[in-house]
Amino acid sequence: MEEMNRPIPSVVNSPHQFSYENGIELTHVEPGLARGMLHAGPNSINPHGMIHGGAIATLADTVAGSCACSRGGRCVTCSATLEFLRPAQGDLFCEATPKKLGQKLSVVQVTIRNAQEKAVATGTLTFFMEAPQKVER
Amino acid sequence: MEEMNRPIPSVVNSPHQFSYENGIELTHVEPGLARGMLHAGPNSINPHGMIHGGAIATLADTVAGSCACSRGGRCVTCSATLEFLRPAQGDLFCEATPKKLGQKLSVVQVTIRNAQEKAVATGTLTFFMEAPQKVER
Amino acid sequence: MEEMNRPIPSVVNSPHQFSYENGIELTHVEPGLARGMLHAGPNSINPHGMIHGGAIATLADTVAGSCACSRGGRCVTCSATLEFLRPAQGDLFCEATPKKLGQKLSVVQVTIRNAQEKAVATGTLTFFMEAPQKVER
Amino acid sequence: MEEMNRPIPSVVNSPHQFSYENGIELTHVEPGLARGMLHAGPNSINPHGMIHGGAIATLADTVAGSCACSRGGRCVTCSATLEFLRPAQGDLFCEATPKKLGQKLSVVQVTIRNAQEKAVATGTLTFFMEAPQKVER
Repeated sequence: MEEMNRPIPSVVNSPHQFSYENGIELTHVEPGLARGMLHAGPNSINPHGMIHGGAIATLADTVAGSCACSRGGRCVTCSATLEFLRPAQGDLFCEATPKKLGQKLSVVQVTIRNAQEKAVATGTLTFFMEAPQKVER
Repeated sequence: MEEMNRPIPSVVNSPHQFSYENGIELTHVEPGLARGMLHAGPNSINPHGMIHGGAIATLADTVAGSCACSRGGRCVTCSATLEFLRPAQGDLFCEATPKKLGQKLSVVQVTIRNAQEKAVATGTLTFFMEAPQKVER
Repeated sequence: MEEMNRPIPSVVNSPHQFSYENGIELTHVEPGLARGMLHAGPNSINPHGMIHGGAIATLADTVAGSCACSRGGRCVTCSATLEFLRPAQGDLFCEATPKKLGQKLSVVQVTIRNAQEKAVATGTLTFFMEAPQKVER
Repeated sequence: MEEMNRPIPSVVNSPHQFSYENGIELTHVEPGLARGMLHAGPNSINPHGMIHGGAIATLADTVAGSCACSRGGRCVTCSATLEFLRPAQGDLFCEATPKKLGQKLSVVQVTIRNAQEKAVATGTLTFFMEAPQKVER
């Protein structure tokens, strides 16, 4: 995820991104918060007919990365842990907030909810920060 | 992931699966082992131009789930942990082997390598087994 | 963690428990919430002189398990993910709340703070529920 | 974990370390490999009478950290994921090998076995490397 003097949503919400091409939209970014959604389609499913865990992971990574960069800087995902709490159907909504925004590492938590606002998955993602960013005071 | 009296690859490698529609193919399943690959395309990337972490997560989940069901039964992913070891480009290859194939829970590890056979990501996925499967002896 | 017709704290806060013998006390349990603390001592440290990650993991597991059983039942830890956000010194305080209390699996999140109320670590633990417990409605 | 011009085992196997005081011994370190064990005692248990998950986590963290520093440098644990595969009793043996030894981050996997050589737990730990270390070539 890189800033490149362009707003994060315009970087993320553009063709050829794996996320964008799969119906994922970054809907809001401010320092310390990012939100996005999956517009579920006929190709979002797993063999059970539910939203594929990979689609949920993509939503999580995309929104969490935008949160990690929300105070500037550039980041790459080091690791992710995801808990799939219940089967998911239809559009999904993700909110990401920092556990820590550091100079070298940032840790971001995500909650993914369905249209009924029930949490279907949660996760924690760690990012390596490649460029200096404004430090927490 | 369900067997449904059909071989696992024919269930997974079929239209509308999120994995299939993103170039992921399950290439081999036998009891205690599954392999698959990502045929990388122009839409597989993240904002850095590398393979998106979500595509890697989808490959991991698809192949690991096939491994978890490789002795029969049906499973759903409970949780996943993924480590992104280095940036990835081009086609990726995933191998999944069990840490434990239990009656209620199975734990599967995955390694994802690039065409140069360098590990780019690893992970561990836990599955809840929904139907009885043959027990380890 | 088992109820055994005894309150959870009396089971946990008793001699020979690894947690108890290392200064960990379960201080509060109610349905859907558990709290505990580490009374840090001279033997709580790692080679850097900070609280050892293992002591933090023990605190997390003990309090999270008590939360998982807080509506009854018996549980065993399936998996744990922990993020160490900053070096920790002195007494530590852990709060555990459920992400999901299920009949078969429960997922519990923990936050561990120092005496200045700064989060030093977070985690998510998954428990296999061995006996039926009251279901969420 | 720091080298401090002393061999890693002499740093780890010394009084007041949380690990040492709980019967954990680092038994072998060479570049890219570390081994250790838990000498189980009456105070190593959880309420089920099995080895406490916290003791297993402490063994994992201690041995993995020694592996991360096995080519020099100093490290702190960023995150840990652990899978508890089966209940554990008696002495436990841990082997740690790197998934990646980087200049900034190292990722180490651990397997913990009982005296019958059955795997009882596995894990993956990520370390932030605080001092430059010899790079992989």
